[in-house]
Amino acid sequence: MLEKYGHGGDLLTAAELYGSKSGKESQDGHGGHGGHSGIFLDFSANINPLGPPPGVLESLRELLPAVTAYPDPGHRRLKRMLAEHTGTGADWLTVGNGAAESMALLLLAVGPRTVGIAEPCFSEYRQLAEQFGAVVKSVQGASARDYKANVEDLAALLEQVDLLFLGQPNNPNGVQYAVEELTQLAEQAERTGTYLAVDEAFIDFIDPGRRQSLLPELARFPHTVLVRSMTKFYAIPGLRLGYTVAHPALAAAMTGKQVTWSVNALALLAGEACLLSGAAYERRTRSLITAERESLRSGLLELGCKVPPGEANFLLCSLPSPWTAAELQDRMGRSGILVRSCAMYPGLEAGHIRVAVKGPEDNAVLLQRMGEILKAGMTE
Amino acid sequence: MLEKYGHGGDLLTAAELYGSKSGKESQDGHGGHGGHSGIFLDFSANINPLGPPPGVLESLRELLPAVTAYPDPGHRRLKRMLAEHTGTGADWLTVGNGAAESMALLLLAVGPRTVGIAEPCFSEYRQLAEQFGAVVKSVQGASARDYKANVEDLAALLEQVDLLFLGQPNNPNGVQYAVEELTQLAEQAERTGTYLAVDEAFIDFIDPGRRQSLLPELARFPHTVLVRSMTKFYAIPGLRLGYTVAHPALAAAMTGKQVTWSVNALALLAGEACLLSGAAYERRTRSLITAERESLRSGLLELGCKVPPGEANFLLCSLPSPWTAAELQDRMGRSGILVRSCAMYPGLEAGHIRVAVKGPEDNAVLLQRMGEILKAGMTE
Repeated sequence: MLEKYGHGGDLLTAAELYGSKSGKESQDGHGGHGGHSGIFLDFSANINPLGPPPGVLESLRELLPAVTAYPDPGHRRLKRMLAEHTGTGADWLTVGNGAAESMALLLLAVGPRTVGIAEPCFSEYRQLAEQFGAVVKSVQGASARDYKANVEDLAALLEQVDLLFLGQPNNPNGVQYAVEELTQLAEQAERTGTYLAVDEAFIDFIDPGRRQSLLPELARFPHTVLVRSMTKFYAIPGLRLGYTVAHPALAAAMTGKQVTWSVNALALLAGEACLLSGAAYERRTRSLITAERESLRSGLLELGCKVPPGEANFLLCSLPSPWTAAELQDRMGRSGILVRSCAMYPGLEAGHIRVAVKGPEDNAVLLQRMGEILKAGMTE
Repeated sequence: MLEKYGHGGDLLTAAELYGSKSGKESQDGHGGHGGHSGIFLDFSANINPLGPPPGVLESLRELLPAVTAYPDPGHRRLKRMLAEHTGTGADWLTVGNGAAESMALLLLAVGPRTVGIAEPCFSEYRQLAEQFGAVVKSVQGASARDYKANVEDLAALLEQVDLLFLGQPNNPNGVQYAVEELTQLAEQAERTGTYLAVDEAFIDFIDPGRRQSLLPELARFPHTVLVRSMTKFYAIPGLRLGYTVAHPALAAAMTGKQVTWSVNALALLAGEACLLSGAAYERRTRSLITAERESLRSGLLELGCKVPPGEANFLLCSLPSPWTAAELQDRMGRSGILVRSCAMYPGLEAGHIRVAVKGPEDNAVLLQRMGEILKAGMTE
């Protein structure tokens, strides 16, 4: 199985599974790791297809000698820039070694006995919660609602837990909750002293006018924390960089649980360079993703798939019966294209996959190859 | 105070404290961060003065596009290389986001209620233990024994705790325990079901023939874990990379507490490149450090300091009365040279500093400037 470690984007496992069968050369016998990812067309990880903002890799090349000194343990410069970027204060921010560490710090700071999640969702909510000793309770999003959980169910769940994780937009279905729904939950969380973690890892891909975020109202909600990722939108997942916005008391508690120098020096420098890259790259990304997502969705619908109208840079896709994700993933993988099986998500089915939205040429290759495979049938 | 975050190597705080007073230009107005560390001669962090092994930075420059893909969450390639490097199996290894994360994972895996330490020691033993909810008990190394703890005291402490941290060689005094002493403690730990963490972060700086390590006997001690750092010897502290060697059951428990992708892609690639760099660089480093440490120690003794005969790439130094570390640090800092105050270490005194062993020219600058300042007297 490609998701040996529970996630997409695992090029080394892909090389082990498909490397020798695909007829493609693995440059050093070690597979896709180490910049050799070009041998696979990777739709299993949701990374900005434009790559890092112009000049960022060049800038990192020049700044590489920074690795010979310790990173700033206070993340001071990046925090100042993020404060401006988010319109908050530096004391509202924590910088994490990826959004995953940010979530871990929240769990360590809050120490919840029970954690709530809305399935299907990012698997790390459950995994991290259990890793740190919490019991996980869940509600289920119905297929008729594009797998989005009902706000009444979420409100009931919030009564039963110490911390609730919500994806906004949610992974793997890509749908957003309305800000009114989030506000209702955040207000409830204040009344009950429960924590609400809204995972906005993919929100940068959504046009500011369509984004449903509690950020502007966050001062009203000291129990709500927004989790952001800088690795997906800015295409630097190898460096690990995330941040959270939360009331200074909660931010300080999270920082108090962080291992010194947890965020490496190049991640900090890359974050600064990405934020400096400005609005043009951000607009270009959102414009590309919006257009390509609609076009990719049309293509997948034409192939007989069911595809909820997600708003992020990926699409959840239910394959035509009797196809299973495992079977399609294997066929695609052997021809050098990686897709994410979603069969292991509670509430989803054996025929669910997730594909990233990439550039027009790559998306066309995906659709063409998928069309050929589906047409050839399950048993070749 | 330079140790705002509890450690040396904080070039940004140095720039804030001394930047404008030193008459030296901070290239971008942001101080020492970001590869601009050249403005300070940094004796406050213990990094190999040779820099990374030949070719490593060049190799990272070429491999920089690896940051656009996720790191291998299983650290598979580096683990295979470390298994060869340490003469163990890959299942005995965990790779950490710096040795500090490795220690945190051990604490999370073991979940000790009480943790033992031998003061003076690396401040993270206490900080991490308390961060994860443990009560810390300590014994004290006496000045007459170069601040090395008595093995009888350690044996008694081991009876009272769930996990004992020992530095080997110990930071900040640089002394080693004899392998017989460690063996006695490791055997006791097996009898009592207590964990023994031997922090070998600086052991690579000691000639193999003089190293006192439990590594060859580790199979006998499933409760002992060796913590190693790759950032100090290979001069890549900005990238964060450490590892542990421990019984597969303990290694698996530690990995189970690690956040996915915690170790970034460039750290993994740098680790691989450093291990490939071979024995010549390692020998050259040890030969330089040994010679320079003795020469630096002689110079410090001539200045009227007391200096225990440490075996690592740093020296603990007691200033002649009535000098305080704070006063000397400030004077040195204003002339562009950073030293580590050790006044905050329990059991040490207001006049204790720690200096890294660097190359001959840098060490000469340190001694000369320190001589001038000490001669000029406390009150200029």
